[in-house]
Parts: sequence; C-alpha cells; structure tokens
Amino acid sequence: MLEKVNLKKKIKKSDYEEQFPKLLEKLGALQRELRDAEIPVIILFEGFRGSWRGLLINKLISALDPRGFRVFSASKTTEKQKQEPFFAQFWKELPAAGQINIHHRAWYFLRNEHAVGDKDEASEWYHVSFGEINAFEKELTDEGYVILKIFTHISAKQQEKNIAKGFQTSGSQWESLTPGGIEGINYKAYEKVYEDMLAKTDMDYAPWHIVPLENKRTGIITTLKILIEELTLALQKRKQEKPEKPASVNDETVPDILSNYDLTKAISEKAYEEKYKKLRKRLGELQLKLYEKKISTIVAFEGWDAGGKGGAIKRLTAGLDPLGYMVNPVRAPNDWEKRFHYLWRFWQHIPAPGETAIFDRTWYGRVLVERVEGFATVQQWRRAYQEINDMEAQWAKQGFIVQKFWMQIDKDEQYDRFKARENDPDKTWKITEEDWRNRDKWGAYEAAVNEMLYRTDTKEAPWTVVEAKSKFYARIKVMETMIKRMEQALEK
Amino acid sequence: MLEKVNLKKKIKKSDYEEQFPKLLEKLGALQRELRDAEIPVIILFEGFRGSWRGLLINKLISALDPRGFRVFSASKTTEKQKQEPFFAQFWKELPAAGQINIHHRAWYFLRNEHAVGDKDEASEWYHVSFGEINAFEKELTDEGYVILKIFTHISAKQQEKNIAKGFQTSGSQWESLTPGGIEGINYKAYEKVYEDMLAKTDMDYAPWHIVPLENKRTGIITTLKILIEELTLALQKRKQEKPEKPASVNDETVPDILSNYDLTKAISEKAYEEKYKKLRKRLGELQLKLYEKKISTIVAFEGWDAGGKGGAIKRLTAGLDPLGYMVNPVRAPNDWEKRFHYLWRFWQHIPAPGETAIFDRTWYGRVLVERVEGFATVQQWRRAYQEINDMEAQWAKQGFIVQKFWMQIDKDEQYDRFKARENDPDKTWKITEEDWRNRDKWGAYEAAVNEMLYRTDTKEAPWTVVEAKSKFYARIKVMETMIKRMEQALEK
Repeated sequence: MLEKVNLKKKIKKSDYEEQFPKLLEKLGALQRELRDAEIPVIILFEGFRGSWRGLLINKLISALDPRGFRVFSASKTTEKQKQEPFFAQFWKELPAAGQINIHHRAWYFLRNEHAVGDKDEASEWYHVSFGEINAFEKELTDEGYVILKIFTHISAKQQEKNIAKGFQTSGSQWESLTPGGIEGINYKAYEKVYEDMLAKTDMDYAPWHIVPLENKRTGIITTLKILIEELTLALQKRKQEKPEKPASVNDETVPDILSNYDLTKAISEKAYEEKYKKLRKRLGELQLKLYEKKISTIVAFEGWDAGGKGGAIKRLTAGLDPLGYMVNPVRAPNDWEKRFHYLWRFWQHIPAPGETAIFDRTWYGRVLVERVEGFATVQQWRRAYQEINDMEAQWAKQGFIVQKFWMQIDKDEQYDRFKARENDPDKTWKITEEDWRNRDKWGAYEAAVNEMLYRTDTKEAPWTVVEAKSKFYARIKVMETMIKRMEQALEK
Repeated sequence: MLEKVNLKKKIKKSDYEEQFPKLLEKLGALQRELRDAEIPVIILFEGFRGSWRGLLINKLISALDPRGFRVFSASKTTEKQKQEPFFAQFWKELPAAGQINIHHRAWYFLRNEHAVGDKDEASEWYHVSFGEINAFEKELTDEGYVILKIFTHISAKQQEKNIAKGFQTSGSQWESLTPGGIEGINYKAYEKVYEDMLAKTDMDYAPWHIVPLENKRTGIITTLKILIEELTLALQKRKQEKPEKPASVNDETVPDILSNYDLTKAISEKAYEEKYKKLRKRLGELQLKLYEKKISTIVAFEGWDAGGKGGAIKRLTAGLDPLGYMVNPVRAPNDWEKRFHYLWRFWQHIPAPGETAIFDRTWYGRVLVERVEGFATVQQWRRAYQEINDMEAQWAKQGFIVQKFWMQIDKDEQYDRFKARENDPDKTWKITEEDWRNRDKWGAYEAAVNEMLYRTDTKEAPWTVVEAKSKFYARIKVMETMIKRMEQALEK
C-alpha cells in the first residue's frame, strides 16, 4: 500500500497560500455544524516518526474553536494506565457528542511499538490484535462516532533528513520530552508493521487515509481536504438517517433458560447464619490475597425488582475490607452521560489493580430495560450482546475476575414482596410506581433475560442465575460462587 | 485534651448486644433520610495506630446501603496525587448530595505523618497548616456538607498490646498491605501532634469527637451514638433552615476599578502581525521550559459577552504544543454538577504537572452571573471571594502560575459587536437572546466586576484587566502578560 503512494507530489507555495486559509475557514465552520448536530469525532494521526504529525495537528487546530477539541498523545500513557485493560484510557476519554478528540498516535501506536520490538516483549499490556482494534472502532462508529485515521507517510531518506535537521523543529517538541521520545527509529521494521496495519484495519466504517508528507505543504493541504471531505460526508449521512423504530422483537430460537431453575430451593435461617459467618470470613481472606496478586474483580448484579440484589450485595461485602471495594449503583443515564457511548460510563468505574467493583444494575440495561421500553433500537440492542462480550473479554484478558448474577424470583413472589414493602414504613421508600409498571411487562422482560443469558454467558464472564425466592439460599449461593471464582483465579 | 478522656469505661457484653443492632437500624434509617434531604456527609476517622479504626468502619458500614457510601484511605494516596495541590484529591472525590464519604484517615493523617517526621522532611507536599485545613472544612460546611470527625483514642500500653496481638486482626489488614503500612509507631510523638491537632481544629462547624477505644465494645457503641446524634441534628438543622433571599447588594466602598482603563489603547494590524508572530514563538519555547521544570499554569478568562475571550485564547494557544494544554469551556452547571460544592467541577480540570489549563469563564461565575442573577445568596457570593482566594493560593503554593484576565469593553462597543455578529452568517451562532438580556444588567455586572477585581486581585493570582476595544491590542497584552509571568516563574 505505502509503495503506491506518490511522495513526489508538490504544491506550489502560491497555491498553498491561497488554499490554506480557505480550508481552515471551511473546517472551522464544519466544527460548528458538527457541534450542533451533536456528532462526536475522533481524528487519529499515525505514521513514521519525523513525518510532521505535530505540525499537522497544530495547523489543523488553528482552525478550531479551542473549546470544542482536546488533543491526546499515546506517549503520555502512564504506568497506572498500563495496569488497566488496554482500551480503558480511550473509553474513559471519549469525546462527548459534538466534541472532537485529536490523537497524536493512539491505540495503533501502542500496538505497533510492541510489534516492532521497541517495547518490552514481556509486557502483556501491549498485546492487542487488529481484530480487537477493529471491534473497538466499529462499536464507536455504530453508535454515531466518526473516526478519521490519517497515516503520515515519508520515505526513509526523508525521515533521516528530517531527524538530522533537528526533529525539534517539527512542530511538536513535546514528543522528545516524553518517555519513549524519538529514539529507536527503524524505518524498515516500522514500514512492515504499518503495511500490515493498513491492510488489516482499513475498514469501511473507519478507513485509513495515507497522506504524503515528503513535502510539508502538500501534506497539510491534503490532510485538510481529507478532513473536510470526510466530515462533510458524515454530516450529510447524519441528516439523511431515518430514525429507526425501536422495538423489542423476541427471538423464538432462544431457549427458556429461566424455567430451568428450581425456585423452591431454600435453606433454614440457622443453616444460613452458620454458613454466612464462615463465608464472610473466607471472602475477607480471599480479598486480601487477590489484592496481593493485583487481581481485580468485577461483580455484576441484575435481577427482577425486589429480587434481593441489595441484600445480596450487603452480605457479599460484609466481610470485605471497605478500602478494597466500591459499590456502583446504576440508574438511567443522566443528560451528560447520554452524550457518550452507552458503555462509557461503566468504564469510568472499573476497579484499580487488586480491587473490586460491584455494580448494582449494569451495562445489561441496554438489552433489558432499554430493549423492553424501546429506548434502544433493535439494531442497537441486538449488537449490544457482542459489544458487551467484547468488553468483558477485555477485562478478563487483563486478569480480572468477571462474575455476573441474575437474581431470579417469580411473579407471585415479586407481588408479595412489593406488598410487604408498601406495608412496612421502613421499606416503602424501596417501592415506586415504576416498579408496578415494569411488572406489567413481565413477559417481555422474561424474553429479554433469556436472550441475555443465552448470548452473554461466556467462559471468562459467566452468568450465575440465583434462585432467590429464599433470600437465605440466594445470599449463600452468591457468596459461594464468588469464593469459587476467587479461588480459581488464585490457583492460576 | 486526650488526658481527660476516661479510657476505662466498659460496656457490658449483654448491653452491647442489645444496643448494637438498634443503633445500626437507626443509622440505616438516617442514611435514607439524609439521601432524601440531599445532604452530603463526610465521616473522618483519625487516631492512634492500632486503635481499631478499620473495625469501627466495618461496623459502621454494616448499617449502610452500600450504594450510598464510599470509603477512602489516605494511605492510598498515589505519587501522582502528591504532585497535585494537597487538597486536590479530596476536592475531586467529594460526595454528591445525599452521599456519604468515609475517610480512614484523611487530610489530618497526611499532615500529621509529616509533623511526626515519619515522612520525608524534604517533601513540601505534606506541609499543610491547620489554618488551611480549617478553611477547607469551613468552605464545605458553609455549603451544606456535614463533617463528622472521630478521634480514636487508646493508651500507649493498649497500643503495644494490640500490635503484639497481631494488628492483622484489627478489621483492616488493608493498612498493612499499603505503602506506609504500620511501621514507625511512636506513641509519644503522635500524642503531641494529636493534642495540637485537637486543640487547633476543633471548630464549631466541624468539631472533634474523641472516642475511647481501649475497650472495643465501648468504642463501637460510642461511635455509633455520636454519629446518630450528629446526623439527627444535621437533619433537624436543615429542616429549620429558612431559604435566604438571593440578592445582589452593591458595596459602596468598592472603587470603580474598570473606569481606570483607557479603552482607546490600540495598535495597528501591521504592528500586531509582527508582534504576534514573535510572541507566539516565545510562548511555545516557554511552554516547553515550564514542562521540563514541571511548573503548571492556570489561565482564567472572564469578560463581557463579545469581549474577545475566544479570540484571545486562540492566539494565546496558537504557538503552544497541543499536547501540553487544555481549554476548558465553562457553562452553567448541569444537574449532576449541581449536586456538589460549586468549586468541585473546577478542581477536576486542574493541569497535570508542567501543563496548562485555560478556563473560558471560570469559578468567578459565583460572584458574577450567580450574584447578579440571584442564583447565589448574598452570604454565598460574599464568602466566595475568600474561598476563591484560598483555592488559588493553594494552586500557587504548589508552584502553579495562576493568571486571570478580564476582557474589558464598553457598552457601545458590545452593541456594535452584537450587531455585527447578527449580520454575519458565519457568526450569528455566537449571539443569543441571553446575551441581549445580560446586556440590560450592565450596571449590576459592572458593580460585580469591580468588587471581584477589588477582592481577588492577589499577589499569587493577579487579575490583568485587558483593554479589549482594540482586539489587536488585547491579544498582544494577553500574550505579553503570560510571557512575563512564565519568565518570572522560570527565574525563581
């Protein structure tokens, strides 16, 4: 691919001076249109070192309202970020609707550094496949993000020349000040890696644009033209999009998993008390061992209203050191959260190394309440199964324990619990009109739960359906399941 | 103070077993009331090592809904946090309205560690005065935060015994796993520091409660009773509070600072172009030098609508490496941001070491728009001058350059600019109905600006009023001012 690029193209100075201010003006106008259309944009620069990426970014942003963009550099990745799943830093920093993120090298850089051997071979962290990168970009573009990928191309000879001339004048000295710096340039090795990258990640939803940078003026004008063209297209596409009708369509091939569970399972209060004390203690011990080994844990709770999530979380955490876990209650997204990809807000709460994050309701809202209530389109919730599996797989890859619980009760039991709550002055706060409304859609929810269990019960992030009619039985099952998962993780 | 505490008090086991569950229940109910009343609570534990703080926290949280509290430990303070201003981590992690933060040692610990000499004497970071701590707590309680401070007291003999018995059984082994750990216990030295602390930080808005922990049961019951009593009081107080009438009252003693500025100051376009190029280059050089020395910069822009803030920011940043600065546009707080202290959201955006944060509108909204429009009460905006001065002083203490600009134009000039914007299809987006409404209150805003300049123009965080009728003049003045500040910082 790179060979075919004509690096000799040159734009005359007079042409450049005529075109440049006009292109900037056009780009500035586009930024405002994108803001008003609430389209989030990611512009990513990758390419040979010494290929004027810094200069390009400076020229580009001179057109933009500084309140509407942020610039990131992969070379600023911290040691702390390297202890998190690979994509965590990018998820956490996604642009809001109408904002622009500009990446001075991003996920490709980190991967390529490793592929070339510039980075510690032993570091698992840099291992990320093109497949994972493609999936990440697809998830974003599917939700309306625009991703523009610019590859800055120069010849080996030009690279040598630029560096000899003093890379410091390239428009970004920052690079030479940050760890990694401009050392270890190996044109041939990078060329091979780049060819591979361009071949395997040039997707229709996020294509590569190779820009010849042998001549600076040519590179600047070419880049601006590409950005203007692509952003104009993105705006047009958005305007032509017809809003899909949201709907919950049941897939008849999904088995009725929930009916397999025997809700008469129960244990006595006495047996519960005895077991509970032992399990609580054991959980505390395991928490410390996991902390020592820096193994993080994510526990996800879903279940019917009044299914006993809160009680189970309380017992699960009773023996844990509060310094090592966090419970994240999840509600409907607020206005600010709605300006991001629906998974964005969960990435903000992944645990620090060795710690535990418990979610009381989760990202599965997409395929449960959002599906049933029509807050997500059919396409959205259908592809969410894969998106969620991908996310959990990334956590597991980083060594996280990922465990999910569905708290299962039947409709009669829910009725009894709702009534009991209404009649108990200490518990009426737990029951709302909405709970009764949700209950009317029991069948639709049941289909959604079955499909969720069917499609997202993976080896690395399994579901455990908890027979929760007996609260005692349920709590013990949750604790025992977690203990087993933790012990397995420690044995590895 | 500590001497007077009766450490010998003992609660009978049977009394404990009767009282304990009742107190937990009461505390759980209080948590829900506090949530509904939207009162944010900070509970802080300080005291001798080996005094069962971890156990106390575990007992306390067993009463609470895990979705409503978070536990923090000062021993988890990271190296990165130590490069930020001392209170930054606490500001960033403030509880939202209705939430509870529990601190297993917090700001006192970090200070005391240093005072005892357990921490590197050379580390400036630990230097925090009791005055600064008092000011921090007052700012929070003034805005409705409840701060409960529990001091856990044991004798030297008991401490020795607890540690010999194995501190690991204290309920928090976490502490022994985290840096700092349980080393360096020097009872006498800490006793002296604690006496000093208790004497100097026992304020009516955030008093200390000394709890005897010689006997565990006594300590637990005493703590729970204190929390219940104090939280009940806080709720009652909130209910009795009569909402103050917001109002903007002009202080006649404030001089008319704005009228001192000569708005006819101007420079030609040619002179501007020449100067601009030189200054832009110089700013880029200085940015790198400041980065090397890890000196951070905060630049705050306020000014009349259409005063030229955006244009000035654009020119100021044109020569900067985009990897080293961030522009933060400030709008009215959204619903989530409103659940915190009004300064909370600005702390989220302070710059990383060596970098620059530019604010387009700022925390001065409190004494400008919130004062004039009546979004803040008289008491609130009056005390804000001191609160803001404190915050900026903390930044300056950490070595930050703090520079504030007021973009000054007159009413006629604003009219002309509004009209020009309305008539320019590329600029109509810049002008709204609200801009015209604000204009009607020019006099009230003028008084607010004068008082702001009068009360918050400090040596470490000065205001520069920019005569902005000539855009060329204004931009050059901003750039030259910043260059001067940066050069001064580098000379130090």
